[in-house]
Amino acid sequence: MKKEVTVLRIGHRLVRDDRVTTHAALVSRAFGASRIYMTGIDQSVKDTVNAIDKRWGGHFEVEIIQDWKSVARAWKKSGGKIAHLTMYGINIDDTVEKLYKEQKLLVIIGAEKVPREAYELADYNIAVGNQPHSEIAALAIFLDRIFEGKQFKRDIAGGQLRIVPSEKGKQVEKI
Amino acid sequence: MKKEVTVLRIGHRLVRDDRVTTHAALVSRAFGASRIYMTGIDQSVKDTVNAIDKRWGGHFEVEIIQDWKSVARAWKKSGGKIAHLTMYGINIDDTVEKLYKEQKLLVIIGAEKVPREAYELADYNIAVGNQPHSEIAALAIFLDRIFEGKQFKRDIAGGQLRIVPSEKGKQVEKI
Repeated sequence: MKKEVTVLRIGHRLVRDDRVTTHAALVSRAFGASRIYMTGIDQSVKDTVNAIDKRWGGHFEVEIIQDWKSVARAWKKSGGKIAHLTMYGINIDDTVEKLYKEQKLLVIIGAEKVPREAYELADYNIAVGNQPHSEIAALAIFLDRIFEGKQFKRDIAGGQLRIVPSEKGKQVEKI
Repeated sequence: MKKEVTVLRIGHRLVRDDRVTTHAALVSRAFGASRIYMTGIDQSVKDTVNAIDKRWGGHFEVEIIQDWKSVARAWKKSGGKIAHLTMYGINIDDTVEKLYKEQKLLVIIGAEKVPREAYELADYNIAVGNQPHSEIAALAIFLDRIFEGKQFKRDIAGGQLRIVPSEKGKQVEKI
């Protein structure tokens, strides 16, 4: 889990996207990314994620940005690589070996049609299957592949609660 | 891909859930399930998924149901098993070996707090990580594990379009 992974979500169509946007942030956090940049969201998404951090641990960052292109360009300038998730790209299982070697990745996902520049700026255009589905699912599979499933077993320190896995029902410990 | 997998989504909080609900259906379809049962959705979600089928192939079924418990009980009576995805369950990577053996699975996901009966009816309560995130992501990882990634390489017959994976841009063939 030494990789530094940040997610960049492009596009947000206001209120009707709020839940999907929150899912994108929570998946980024639970699956081992350290930050998500988002355009056009309101403060409430950020507050929701911060409340989860307080309860369940970690220091995941939600950053509201204005211009995704300048963020992506700065990322590349600082030596990071960009992986853009798109159904038109190369299948993830055909490119995952290369991704293992990357230590600093910006993962671009789109809430809507993604501008052509994203395909151009990306070092990798990656398909999580070549069928339409969900940027949340694509992000989950991408992070699961690059962290090789280890993200589910890591400890996220600093929370108030911890789940004790159980076969039936709910068991939660106060820390 | 011989397994028969159906998804059952419990709960839907009307209009604000429409996009998440559509994501759940599209992920089920793209990741190899053959059907999704949903409560309380309107016809538009079903229409969206049917339009995707027409364009991109397959015969994925969206069924609107009234009473999820009777569907789950009938499933068990017919010899199928139930896997309920919950952050309180046993980590998927600790139970996946058992799941490989199951040939007929109903996967329960919740749009909101899931009633206690779901935990009781389930043969497996499975956590895709013990952190809060997204039922869409949990479903994606679950299906990816049980189909061992092969769902992305299978042919979905009967559509009008097919993507040719490419490193930059979009390449689509008419069939």
